[in-house]
Amino acid sequence: MKNTAIVGATGAVGRTMLSILEAREFPVKDLRLLASERSAGTTVETKWGAIEIEDLATADPAGIDVALFSAGGTRSKEYAPRFAAAGATVVDNSSAFRMDDHVPLVVAQVNDHAVAEHSGIIANPNCTTMVLMMAAGPLHRHNGIRRMVATSYQSVSGSGMHGMDVLYDETQLLMSDRESLQRGGWVDPQGALYERPIGFNVLAMAGSVTDRGYTDEEWKLVNETRKILEAPHMAVEPTCVRVPVMVGHGLAATMYFEEDIDAETARTVLADAPGLELWTDKTPTPLDSAGIDNVLAGRVRDTVGEPGGINLWVVGDNLRKGAALNAVQIAELL
Amino acid sequence: MKNTAIVGATGAVGRTMLSILEAREFPVKDLRLLASERSAGTTVETKWGAIEIEDLATADPAGIDVALFSAGGTRSKEYAPRFAAAGATVVDNSSAFRMDDHVPLVVAQVNDHAVAEHSGIIANPNCTTMVLMMAAGPLHRHNGIRRMVATSYQSVSGSGMHGMDVLYDETQLLMSDRESLQRGGWVDPQGALYERPIGFNVLAMAGSVTDRGYTDEEWKLVNETRKILEAPHMAVEPTCVRVPVMVGHGLAATMYFEEDIDAETARTVLADAPGLELWTDKTPTPLDSAGIDNVLAGRVRDTVGEPGGINLWVVGDNLRKGAALNAVQIAELL
Repeated sequence: MKNTAIVGATGAVGRTMLSILEAREFPVKDLRLLASERSAGTTVETKWGAIEIEDLATADPAGIDVALFSAGGTRSKEYAPRFAAAGATVVDNSSAFRMDDHVPLVVAQVNDHAVAEHSGIIANPNCTTMVLMMAAGPLHRHNGIRRMVATSYQSVSGSGMHGMDVLYDETQLLMSDRESLQRGGWVDPQGALYERPIGFNVLAMAGSVTDRGYTDEEWKLVNETRKILEAPHMAVEPTCVRVPVMVGHGLAATMYFEEDIDAETARTVLADAPGLELWTDKTPTPLDSAGIDNVLAGRVRDTVGEPGGINLWVVGDNLRKGAALNAVQIAELL
Repeated sequence: MKNTAIVGATGAVGRTMLSILEAREFPVKDLRLLASERSAGTTVETKWGAIEIEDLATADPAGIDVALFSAGGTRSKEYAPRFAAAGATVVDNSSAFRMDDHVPLVVAQVNDHAVAEHSGIIANPNCTTMVLMMAAGPLHRHNGIRRMVATSYQSVSGSGMHGMDVLYDETQLLMSDRESLQRGGWVDPQGALYERPIGFNVLAMAGSVTDRGYTDEEWKLVNETRKILEAPHMAVEPTCVRVPVMVGHGLAATMYFEEDIDAETARTVLADAPGLELWTDKTPTPLDSAGIDNVLAGRVRDTVGEPGGINLWVVGDNLRKGAALNAVQIAELL
């Protein structure tokens, strides 16, 4: 039984963490919910009774065994080391520590062994990377991925609750003028979250540009993939795109291997992969993935240009396996 | 001045053809509008007066100089040769004749010279391929594309007016239950157009599977690209995905060349490309492309995995440059 805390308990991922702790009957001894001052004082009904949300800034971390953090990188940087110093093992969903050499970056069911090396903080990978790793991990172990093109279809809940509100509001505005909508439509972006509208639109730039024209999201896909698969030289071409979907991140990937593979072998590997469902009769969609634990793969095809590789599609719930579920699975590994 | 006909005048592309003929002041002598029996007899107001829609099945093609066909492959197969035999030059928007060795496949401003070889029928490429060619054409001429991964974000109007109705109806149903929508949402597919819902969802299978697990849309991207660029051995890995957007098809592409290229050179090439606008300050979206003639390119980046190639994004109005505009541009070349 563990004294368990959720930091960022009122966010899209934090709420999902709570429901997953409940559903998986995580051995919670005492549950604490922490968030910013704005939410502090409100009460949340849980399986372990009604719990008042504490203000992260003033809460005392003493006695916490496991803390699941999903409160953004800035808060993680400040508070995760304090919680760890007070004796908690922190599973951090932000990008703050992911590339830190002393912090394991773990996709449960892909590189569980890495958990052992932790010294107080374990990082939960980026949601898009996580979904891809559920298929790429087993394939890499089998044939060694040499190079990969990964193109994403990321839902707005990857930007938190606010992303879902923006998509809802823009969609509503666009739906109010059907004639204009049938010519494509246009709406001024609601809020400052995205630079261009997302309602009935596609933003081929998820995240913010950092280096060489690539966004932070795209660099995560490159660097986290290499760290998780322990393949520092794997060539990854990333393009991260936001689509008008509420929940569920998809990726189309082209993979070439150290040793050539065929689609039939790849399907056999994926059919055996834990936490992954291979669909062969129909194509899994974000809506199919929303609310379930398994990541869904499909459309595994032999490459038709250069032979020896595969093209595939993979989709997963970014709030569950892409974030909250994996964090809880890491906690279960401890 | 030319006796001009639009076949399939009531469809999404046919309507756009009419508005483009009007806007570009195409030298129409006499305009005829043809469609199925269902639409025959209704009157359409045009720049050249009110025109009654004729029943394609019974209309006499005699006297038509140019016929723009967008009535589906089956009707093209039956009627385009008849119109050509009666003296018309047919610009056909269906896939019926695209891969026919005796039929030029033309992207205006990319391979105009091919028009010369026609013998009555000229094929208009697939809308997704067309958008990609506006960027790939100039880059191929400059450095020779050797291999390419192309992943699409195709709007529902690529499936015609019916696609837009399905997306509208599903979106409306999903919006009516916000709580369920915030968990992803689910709606039964409206109509038989798509096998799974498209509202707030992504279908990673545009078209129908034909060979080796690839859809007809994906094979078009491979085979039409090779024909248009006169590069029969170019390696193309295609993934065609439908997204909940009304108008505008986007593609993310990774390209490697006979001769290595850098992003700066690629940007210079694309900045000079006719019919293409290169955006460097922001990322063009489908909504930006809807209703305009130019195809928009952006996010031109040096590859970060294997060096020497580029990643880029391109988006265009699938009803205009992707179909109707290109057909009219071909007619203008005649």
